[in-house]
Amino acid sequence: MTVNDRFAALGIDNAPGQQAPVQKTGERVMDFSHGDVDAFPPASGAIEAVNEAYLAGSGRAYSPYRGHGDLLNEVADKLAGFTGAPVDPANGLMITPGTQGGLFLALSAIVEPGDKVAIVEPDYFANRKIIAFLGGRIVPVALDYEDVSAPATVDVERIEDAARSGTKLLVFSNPNNPTGVVYTQDQIRAIVSIAQMHGMFVVVDQLYSRLIYPGQSFTHLRASGIDPANCLTLMGPSKTESLSGFRTGVAMGPAPILDRMEQILAIHSLRTAGYNQAVLTTWFNEPEGWLEQRVEEHQDLRNDLVSLFRSVDGVAVRPTEGGSYLFPKLPEMGIPAGAFCESLRLEDSIVVTPGAEFSPHHAASIRLNFSQDRHRAVAAVESIVQRIEERTR
Amino acid sequence: MTVNDRFAALGIDNAPGQQAPVQKTGERVMDFSHGDVDAFPPASGAIEAVNEAYLAGSGRAYSPYRGHGDLLNEVADKLAGFTGAPVDPANGLMITPGTQGGLFLALSAIVEPGDKVAIVEPDYFANRKIIAFLGGRIVPVALDYEDVSAPATVDVERIEDAARSGTKLLVFSNPNNPTGVVYTQDQIRAIVSIAQMHGMFVVVDQLYSRLIYPGQSFTHLRASGIDPANCLTLMGPSKTESLSGFRTGVAMGPAPILDRMEQILAIHSLRTAGYNQAVLTTWFNEPEGWLEQRVEEHQDLRNDLVSLFRSVDGVAVRPTEGGSYLFPKLPEMGIPAGAFCESLRLEDSIVVTPGAEFSPHHAASIRLNFSQDRHRAVAAVESIVQRIEERTR
Repeated sequence: MTVNDRFAALGIDNAPGQQAPVQKTGERVMDFSHGDVDAFPPASGAIEAVNEAYLAGSGRAYSPYRGHGDLLNEVADKLAGFTGAPVDPANGLMITPGTQGGLFLALSAIVEPGDKVAIVEPDYFANRKIIAFLGGRIVPVALDYEDVSAPATVDVERIEDAARSGTKLLVFSNPNNPTGVVYTQDQIRAIVSIAQMHGMFVVVDQLYSRLIYPGQSFTHLRASGIDPANCLTLMGPSKTESLSGFRTGVAMGPAPILDRMEQILAIHSLRTAGYNQAVLTTWFNEPEGWLEQRVEEHQDLRNDLVSLFRSVDGVAVRPTEGGSYLFPKLPEMGIPAGAFCESLRLEDSIVVTPGAEFSPHHAASIRLNFSQDRHRAVAAVESIVQRIEERTR
Repeated sequence: MTVNDRFAALGIDNAPGQQAPVQKTGERVMDFSHGDVDAFPPASGAIEAVNEAYLAGSGRAYSPYRGHGDLLNEVADKLAGFTGAPVDPANGLMITPGTQGGLFLALSAIVEPGDKVAIVEPDYFANRKIIAFLGGRIVPVALDYEDVSAPATVDVERIEDAARSGTKLLVFSNPNNPTGVVYTQDQIRAIVSIAQMHGMFVVVDQLYSRLIYPGQSFTHLRASGIDPANCLTLMGPSKTESLSGFRTGVAMGPAPILDRMEQILAIHSLRTAGYNQAVLTTWFNEPEGWLEQRVEEHQDLRNDLVSLFRSVDGVAVRPTEGGSYLFPKLPEMGIPAGAFCESLRLEDSIVVTPGAEFSPHHAASIRLNFSQDRHRAVAAVESIVQRIEERTR
């Protein structure tokens, strides 16, 4: 396989955030590929913490690769409280260059060329692509989320078959990116039981696990009876907390995997930016009521946009249960969904992410991150809806 | 090969900066594994630029993976002026998560499993380790720097043999890390001529290329007649400019390689921290005389430390020509050099990096980053010298 073949197989050309919006005269662009930190600003204190770290100088510019020790201690307590299981700051926690950086390091520490890895479809675009980069073999596992009258269900039998036939690792995001569904406690327990039975390792990306809508309950895999030696959890303050510009996340997992992740980090980017790590002091430390308000505002936005999408014949959309993504399935419009996304970008200055980024079977869907200014998001979805109607009339 | 075998082969356990100094009561530790940004602070403006970017909000939190367009434009001009060859901001430049992040991305974009890659010995620890991680095969090339009466010479014949027998890539740092030697124009031209003849790609890490001591001239590979399609140059403001805490670097190279680097970045850490990219506005923009003073102060430090090391029988040290590393070769002391480093750390709270990190053949040397407070660096090297004398008496 030549290098060109290998990169073509990776297929990272349309990664979310890469398609620059087209700005027309007098119009603002609407970029649904990521959230708007102006509409939902960070809680106060983050930039101040970075400034303090800068002024503190040498001791903060460089940290051990795993992160500054005092921050690891502080974050370990918060994460233990949030997830409901102990976190060892010395051997079970690492500060990562964003949650994305943590995902790359975790999979690099676990997957050998030829290894079979179970990947949920649809799920975060990089899961599949990192496995391809590492030479792993993808075992796809379907997530059924289209029936809005029932909880979403991942194909547990398929996971069990995969584990029985030597699949070493399951990777998934919860809440799921791009569909916004939250795994039920029963589903998480079923995954734990398979992992326990077959010694399968599970990496769970819980980046959005603080933005859970009322009526949903969130189950932390790491506190659900799984052997801690077989579970790694990724989180970070990039999304709900709007601190993405600092590229800081965390990984909680067993010592041998973190040891290897640290070795990969040494050749990957050395360490999470030393000063930026300080934003973690604000995490789980926001003013009282801040998180509740953030959830409520996102819920209102979700409701607005779901209603808009449902006003068009042929569009199917499941209301988000956690996080800030909608993943509506579009009707047949006579052009491929990717071309429709491109026309939105060029004609309406609206960027959405094609569903094909998240699964080979979901090309008819589009993903929107609705963590945006409410007025502008509604106006943009009205335009999208109108374009769909024009093409299906 | 099991995952444990593969990680053992990587050998990243003693990467520079990983051995925490031991702090004794009332004593300050001396960490020579990296520079001290208190002793050599950044030029003003960097943290202010990051604050401005944060206040600017959404447009600065997220950038295209390659970096913010305005910064790419600005940096391209500066780098073209500095290196003496054009830099295309749209297709020939990328902002990277530190220079280390750029190195990982560049090698990942070029090296396929089984590829032969020429690596200079000694050289930056991660060069060898990234190639091992990617499944490449290392073709070692000796750098002869021990004869201080002559310019250092890389084994050009060996590079030519390697190129002739299918070696696809040469990677090296200039100024060399850890020895601090600068490649002569003749040596760079010889490398260019081999690259031209055999279509070999060359990645050069010029992280320290602004800290060149009087009497040395620095030759930019990219302005020395090499086909731009076969050359990628890494730089960044982490060292001379003391901005390492922001993890921001740059890569200049041909469009097809940068395209692939961008695809890897999408699964590696998405982008260089959006706000931090703003520190590049201060780069090559320091107050008049700032760089000259920084070079002079490092030169004085170098002279002090070289004299101290030369005062001991059996220590050989070449005065640094560029950058802030010294790589003295220690005499036979009855214990392995690694154990000597460990005793310095435990008994004297002094951290140096074992030579084995930079080459399998240089275990008798130690590396010191002397970008430190002059008084404290001198005192620490006096202690090292005393320990050597105690063990060789």
